[in-house]
Amino acid sequence: MSLSSQTLSGLQAIVGAEQVLTSQEDLIAYSYDGTAAMQQMPEAVVFPRSTEQVAQVLQWAQKARLPVVTRGSGTGLSGGSLPTPGALVLCLVKMDRILELDTKNLTLRVEAGATTQAVADASGAAGLFYPPDPGSMKISTIGGNVAENSGGLRGLKYGVTRNYVMGLRVVLADGTVLWLGNKCVKDVAGFSLKDLFIGSEGTLGVITEVLLRLIPTPQAKKTMLATFPRMDQAAETVSAIIAAQIIPCTLEFLDRTTIRCVEDYTHIGLPLDCEALLLIETDGHPAVVADETTRMEKICRDHGCQEVRVARDDAEAAQLASARRTAFSALARVSPTTILEDATVPRSELAAMVRFIQATAQKYQLRVGVFGHMGDGNLHPTVLTNERNTEEMHRVEQAFQEIFQETIRLGGTVTGEHGVGLAKKAILPKALGDESIRWMRHLRQLFDPAGILNPGKMVE
Amino acid sequence: MSLSSQTLSGLQAIVGAEQVLTSQEDLIAYSYDGTAAMQQMPEAVVFPRSTEQVAQVLQWAQKARLPVVTRGSGTGLSGGSLPTPGALVLCLVKMDRILELDTKNLTLRVEAGATTQAVADASGAAGLFYPPDPGSMKISTIGGNVAENSGGLRGLKYGVTRNYVMGLRVVLADGTVLWLGNKCVKDVAGFSLKDLFIGSEGTLGVITEVLLRLIPTPQAKKTMLATFPRMDQAAETVSAIIAAQIIPCTLEFLDRTTIRCVEDYTHIGLPLDCEALLLIETDGHPAVVADETTRMEKICRDHGCQEVRVARDDAEAAQLASARRTAFSALARVSPTTILEDATVPRSELAAMVRFIQATAQKYQLRVGVFGHMGDGNLHPTVLTNERNTEEMHRVEQAFQEIFQETIRLGGTVTGEHGVGLAKKAILPKALGDESIRWMRHLRQLFDPAGILNPGKMVE
Repeated sequence: MSLSSQTLSGLQAIVGAEQVLTSQEDLIAYSYDGTAAMQQMPEAVVFPRSTEQVAQVLQWAQKARLPVVTRGSGTGLSGGSLPTPGALVLCLVKMDRILELDTKNLTLRVEAGATTQAVADASGAAGLFYPPDPGSMKISTIGGNVAENSGGLRGLKYGVTRNYVMGLRVVLADGTVLWLGNKCVKDVAGFSLKDLFIGSEGTLGVITEVLLRLIPTPQAKKTMLATFPRMDQAAETVSAIIAAQIIPCTLEFLDRTTIRCVEDYTHIGLPLDCEALLLIETDGHPAVVADETTRMEKICRDHGCQEVRVARDDAEAAQLASARRTAFSALARVSPTTILEDATVPRSELAAMVRFIQATAQKYQLRVGVFGHMGDGNLHPTVLTNERNTEEMHRVEQAFQEIFQETIRLGGTVTGEHGVGLAKKAILPKALGDESIRWMRHLRQLFDPAGILNPGKMVE
Repeated sequence: MSLSSQTLSGLQAIVGAEQVLTSQEDLIAYSYDGTAAMQQMPEAVVFPRSTEQVAQVLQWAQKARLPVVTRGSGTGLSGGSLPTPGALVLCLVKMDRILELDTKNLTLRVEAGATTQAVADASGAAGLFYPPDPGSMKISTIGGNVAENSGGLRGLKYGVTRNYVMGLRVVLADGTVLWLGNKCVKDVAGFSLKDLFIGSEGTLGVITEVLLRLIPTPQAKKTMLATFPRMDQAAETVSAIIAAQIIPCTLEFLDRTTIRCVEDYTHIGLPLDCEALLLIETDGHPAVVADETTRMEKICRDHGCQEVRVARDDAEAAQLASARRTAFSALARVSPTTILEDATVPRSELAAMVRFIQATAQKYQLRVGVFGHMGDGNLHPTVLTNERNTEEMHRVEQAFQEIFQETIRLGGTVTGEHGVGLAKKAILPKALGDESIRWMRHLRQLFDPAGILNPGKMVE
């Protein structure tokens, strides 16, 4: 411990001694997040209970010259909440209250540490719907979702976290507290500072409270699953669905490797001789759902699908959906280390991108499963490897360099929903260009001149 | 003219002599925008033809120490494109090309000077839909829409301009050109600089190109018009529609004064003894439209409407919609000066806000019509006055001070869609708080240290 007990007592005085962890055993649990092959011990972990305490902790950290890494449940996939060397982890999970459900204005105000599931449940209990559903939603926090601008399986129709944030309480590095936003559907009073903090990954301030927009719950939903002998047929099916002016709420894809791992794991009865599987869901008014289901089934058949199954009831729908929902777990159990990546391209480039990923996997002799949000162009190439095999890890790195170069070349982005953090920091300048990087750096310096917030992440 | 001919020749060398206006007769047309009672002569007007020329003009202006006010068609309602003293007006209307319609990715890339109508038409020709429809869309430019984050009549269901911007080309004060965004539905690579420029009203940079997201055109639409003896009944109807989980694409309101002016002007046959009129439109799948129309008609009747008319065909729909579409013109012809304001509150506070506006009008003996986007809580209290009557103009100012204090007290915003510009600059600190203002000022200094972009607007 490099923190003197005198310095530490200042922190304990703010939150209470029991809300500060410093023993090695306690710190280990906060030394990593959901990102593979990254670990770093923090100096201490603190659990504030209020915005006021967060402000005091940041002022204390400025004085103690301690870097601060804000963290929710640590489910991030880009190292955004991984402790930087010597950091204080500011863990917001104990600020988890649902503060206000306003059914007249369709808003929900919550503390940052509330889980996404708690947000979904509180909304659902009032007959309302919070659409963003990141894969980790059962444990991820809403503050983390906002800081990372999390996506999920419903992005094509419903958008991402940013589209549902109406207001934020943010604590700046110097302890200043800002409230940004309100319950108005339209607001153009001043710069949208709120949008600057959404997706800023803990580098510009600490989000402590969120005002969310909710929508009416869709009345009906239909789930279908289609398998295709060739990848191109699946990609063309996606294009044809959009061209038919249907925007399904879910339009997900698994490749052959992923299908085989899922079938091994779940025994749903997926055909093993197909190159692509699409999970398609439509929701909304019952008449629209019925109509779109019929039309999409026909589109699948017209594009050479091998088989298409339309769920007859909720139980079958859940079974079909599990083919996609279990994809990551099914792949993860195959090898010691699973690297889940996040390459996103314009929808028209999907087939080309999948082919490139598969060719690159072959070139570097890697086992790669590809699945993801086909409707969004958001692919998750997933490498099944072993982080102790340094030679193979080197090949993994080379393969991803090529994959992200290609993503950029196709007009895509190096991260669709996982964030930059540490994982994409090196490639970010290639994706955005030096000028954008320069302005990101300026913004960090402006909001955090002492450089205490998540140093070493995103841009330096 | 305070510009020396030598200085001016530098500007002419960039764009060609015929693209620079300096004569008094020519400058008068650029000495005002759509905002009442504001006029200020510019030094010169320049019409660049490319992003490259915009960059060179800004570099020239930095050297000549000339403030620059960017302008499209000058339809703004907050003085955002009014020349500041000694300013060069940078007018982008000649950069109006449609650059790319991508039907696979549902995007449209245009130069900033293209009109909103041209964007709507180009989208419509491909069977696609660009939803934002500000009142001035026939002549307003898309660059101006983005700089002001314009709204329109479809905000409740479809959102505002910000929700359709996927990419921006921006020229900074020093001539740096940034491209921000891409065609990906999801993108979390770095801070959302794009969102900082949307709604920045020409103070952080000059937007020269926009990549827009389009959506499928709704297949059907139904228009209805309901009148209510009492204002509260209309407000309760709006709440009941939302509570029934219906999100109409249009939910507009006129008060008694506006109804009378509209009827005088259009002779549609509106009842003159009612306090409120609602124009309601639902669009989408034909089955949904039919279902929602029936349910909303019943909700209107259940809440004591005097009359409800459902359009039987497009012609009647257009006639009913004209009651709302002509509201501003109908009010404007009554008096020499029409001041169109923009007070927005959470939806639940609408009835209270309308009552407060009417009481304040009475207190200050002013003629005020109120209309607006009821579903969004976005009201347009409109004063019928004469700017030469200084005594009355003083009362107008006092009345609006009280109205905006009340807007803020009710958790609203001082501008829902018109922007801050000059009109709301004085009240902005009360709405946002000193800390947000301080950070807006920091951002302006960061992006434009010489202070040449739209000085004196928003915050100083």
